[in-house]
Amino acid sequence: MNQATFLRNAWYMFAWSDEVLAAPFARTILGEPVVVYRNSAEAGDLTALMDRCPHRFAPLSKGQLVNGNIECPYHGLQFNGAGKCVHNIFSSAVPAAAKVKTYPIQEVDQALWIWMGDPALADVATIPLIDYHHARDSRWVSGLTTAKADYRLLSDNLMDLSHTTLIHPGLGGRDYMPKVRSWEQPNGDVVASFTTENMNNFFGEEVIPAPFVRHCDTIRWSPPSTHYLASQTSHVGSEEAVVSIYSAHILTPETPTSTHYFWSSTVPDGFPEEVIRETLIQAFDREDKPMVEAVQVRMGDAELWDLNPVLLPSDVGGVRMRRKLEALLKAEHAQANACAVESATSS
Amino acid sequence: MNQATFLRNAWYMFAWSDEVLAAPFARTILGEPVVVYRNSAEAGDLTALMDRCPHRFAPLSKGQLVNGNIECPYHGLQFNGAGKCVHNIFSSAVPAAAKVKTYPIQEVDQALWIWMGDPALADVATIPLIDYHHARDSRWVSGLTTAKADYRLLSDNLMDLSHTTLIHPGLGGRDYMPKVRSWEQPNGDVVASFTTENMNNFFGEEVIPAPFVRHCDTIRWSPPSTHYLASQTSHVGSEEAVVSIYSAHILTPETPTSTHYFWSSTVPDGFPEEVIRETLIQAFDREDKPMVEAVQVRMGDAELWDLNPVLLPSDVGGVRMRRKLEALLKAEHAQANACAVESATSS
Amino acid sequence: MNQATFLRNAWYMFAWSDEVLAAPFARTILGEPVVVYRNSAEAGDLTALMDRCPHRFAPLSKGQLVNGNIECPYHGLQFNGAGKCVHNIFSSAVPAAAKVKTYPIQEVDQALWIWMGDPALADVATIPLIDYHHARDSRWVSGLTTAKADYRLLSDNLMDLSHTTLIHPGLGGRDYMPKVRSWEQPNGDVVASFTTENMNNFFGEEVIPAPFVRHCDTIRWSPPSTHYLASQTSHVGSEEAVVSIYSAHILTPETPTSTHYFWSSTVPDGFPEEVIRETLIQAFDREDKPMVEAVQVRMGDAELWDLNPVLLPSDVGGVRMRRKLEALLKAEHAQANACAVESATSS
Repeated sequence: MNQATFLRNAWYMFAWSDEVLAAPFARTILGEPVVVYRNSAEAGDLTALMDRCPHRFAPLSKGQLVNGNIECPYHGLQFNGAGKCVHNIFSSAVPAAAKVKTYPIQEVDQALWIWMGDPALADVATIPLIDYHHARDSRWVSGLTTAKADYRLLSDNLMDLSHTTLIHPGLGGRDYMPKVRSWEQPNGDVVASFTTENMNNFFGEEVIPAPFVRHCDTIRWSPPSTHYLASQTSHVGSEEAVVSIYSAHILTPETPTSTHYFWSSTVPDGFPEEVIRETLIQAFDREDKPMVEAVQVRMGDAELWDLNPVLLPSDVGGVRMRRKLEALLKAEHAQANACAVESATSS
Repeated sequence: MNQATFLRNAWYMFAWSDEVLAAPFARTILGEPVVVYRNSAEAGDLTALMDRCPHRFAPLSKGQLVNGNIECPYHGLQFNGAGKCVHNIFSSAVPAAAKVKTYPIQEVDQALWIWMGDPALADVATIPLIDYHHARDSRWVSGLTTAKADYRLLSDNLMDLSHTTLIHPGLGGRDYMPKVRSWEQPNGDVVASFTTENMNNFFGEEVIPAPFVRHCDTIRWSPPSTHYLASQTSHVGSEEAVVSIYSAHILTPETPTSTHYFWSSTVPDGFPEEVIRETLIQAFDREDKPMVEAVQVRMGDAELWDLNPVLLPSDVGGVRMRRKLEALLKAEHAQANACAVESATSS
Repeated sequence: MNQATFLRNAWYMFAWSDEVLAAPFARTILGEPVVVYRNSAEAGDLTALMDRCPHRFAPLSKGQLVNGNIECPYHGLQFNGAGKCVHNIFSSAVPAAAKVKTYPIQEVDQALWIWMGDPALADVATIPLIDYHHARDSRWVSGLTTAKADYRLLSDNLMDLSHTTLIHPGLGGRDYMPKVRSWEQPNGDVVASFTTENMNNFFGEEVIPAPFVRHCDTIRWSPPSTHYLASQTSHVGSEEAVVSIYSAHILTPETPTSTHYFWSSTVPDGFPEEVIRETLIQAFDREDKPMVEAVQVRMGDAELWDLNPVLLPSDVGGVRMRRKLEALLKAEHAQANACAVESATSS
């Protein structure tokens, strides 16, 4: 398990917009310390820099903003949004070599997305879009939890929702007995669906006036680690949803064995926001996270395939996701090596 | 210091019987996570499995028992006492490859013993027997402490009881000035005896009506790490014990640098159980354990002999024990290599 | 970052005198556990031994003194001030091979200094002297903080006092805009001076009756890690100090990434000791230490030059110090290798 398990040329969610206010905000992404700040509150311009001054390696995030530039808290060098040193408080001579690594960062629909790889490849059009984040007047709640586990174990967990049966009694529990299907979309996204034709009405009859319901979860993985889930509940025998809840599960590796898990969910008409929020915090923080962290402990630093996992039919989506991710990692490493060779032979 | 310091083909104490009740019970033994449960409360049938589901590596110990089988808490596979998957809650197709490693386990006189090596070699007749555990109507107390130290350092401590003088003021302290002898028994066990001909009567004259006593401790080590101690106090000049206390000190490595220390002791007539229990908790938890843990810190990851210890006469038993243990480890590794060669050449 | 970053043939401050009272006192120096004790309270004779018994590696510091010898707390061997075993409480036969490594140690003006390298090279005349520690009737305060950082990062911090501007608002803060100079003294010490010709009178007009002052800090580094600082405040335009404060900043590596930081400071006439003490605890414990520890985290286990720091004019003293220290380390390693070769060829 090493940093070669991360795709670098990809957008990763960095934070929810309301986490990054006036002050510099620090978070570790793919093992690198990053500081993000808004150059001006009105414009909302964002800067993302490595959170390490090139002078004496102090954390810039502990500094303040001066005229839209970030000032190192140790000896006062000031850097602009391009990572260039623009002011030395002690001297008119600005050190030309003082340059901080910058990262492309974008704010889209209340979320900040960062690109940790080659900036030349960062195409804003490829930022994952969550439709209900974008929709006017949609009601949704969001949160974040950081788990001590490889991000791929959290993806595995999402791509096999049959764990609901054992782990999430409040989401159906033992009644959740899905038929599982999976396919790859033309764009390379991987989808898995989980349909239970007849289960106890876990919403209660004041929501759906019937003792039993049909429930279908359809989750779509977009590389490297964004998951979009449509949870649709209908009358038994019907595919027309009476209650639909959409949710996003966006994983950003902090280190090889820890992951920022950003989540959001729509709030259907008639539901209080707090009920949905509490249900999801219960599911993610208190049910999923301890299990996935326990799996990480049991796996130690072994790669999944090296442990020869026994596969079940419900693993179909997760395995397809893993294979796709491995192909993307292999392609990225091949490209990196090719560039290294080219650079070596042309010099 | 690595796992090659553990004999694998040996019985290790896993738990006291009353630690393992209805629910699955987890403990790490020789670095491996193990879960033990009773298949049925009446029969007392025991199962010991690696505490890691072969599907997605969840800890089985967090699951429940269903018809005497253990159910994985993550996706519900059920395993029987032979480690074979017997039920998939989602499908009639049971994954044939899903097999959990099992370990021989036996309950003898209130203690559970596990065999971590080749099951074909596990002979129940070689489980260490503690006579007073077996005796009808004997009174004894027991306990467990887990120390952050290599199990061999705890054996060293037991095989040189001259540490009593400095460490255990309540067991004689400075008056404990033993003559030390050691020998190997025909079966390979190592014995060390510590005789003080004349010391203050640390029991008090209400127990032995004399100001001074003779005291003899005889400790027997059986590989890999069971110690049986007879502590006999008599009148000065006599070898006929007035008070005899027998105790067992059974060490099971948790990891290369941590050890489960199971202990028990008879309670002589006229003594309240609580007095004996408190005396031993004081001696093991508050006196021996901090010292042995401090030694572990000072030794770091060095092997004892690599640090060239200066040996004293009182080390005679501990050194004999170490040499015996090293010979057994060497034989086990040679056998393992021979099997590996045989298997390679016969294929 | 390894122990090759430590000069061994050098005096290191071990403790303030009043830390080492009647009982044995343990502290880790250059990664080695050391115990120091006073053989007799009257004479003040000091002994420094490796804090590890050569028998079973127990910490001698947990033992007691018996007739001026230290007794191992585990099995009672007693060692004299030359590290020689002089008594075995169980036997008249004293194990001849039982010898504990000793270190030269000296008490000078309320501080204990230890020599971790070749004892034959330990010249008492080279112990760093702090003049006001020695002066009769001088008032000074002292303290100690242990920081989780390489000692060289703390030296870097001291040799570039321009960090005062950002980090120490109570010592001038943004008004501290020094001109920096540095030079090497004939004896190899490195000096850096920081002069601010005109700044707000941070002492207040009750101390110096003027709104602005001139302030000059001159810091002298003596290898391996003693710093002597003269802080002189005068009227603007004058070099004649109205207030002078002298301080010592003595760094002793505990491990490659942690450092004992001993400090002291004179108390000028008219100042209460507590004001000076509180000011320095604020500066060192609450301002410098968190910053230097954050730098250590950002640097991980990289060496400074491997990270290509961008250098500023104010780094002149720190860089000169680093280069000097590196030359001394190189010389010490060359000498050690030469000795090793000589010893190999003469045998």
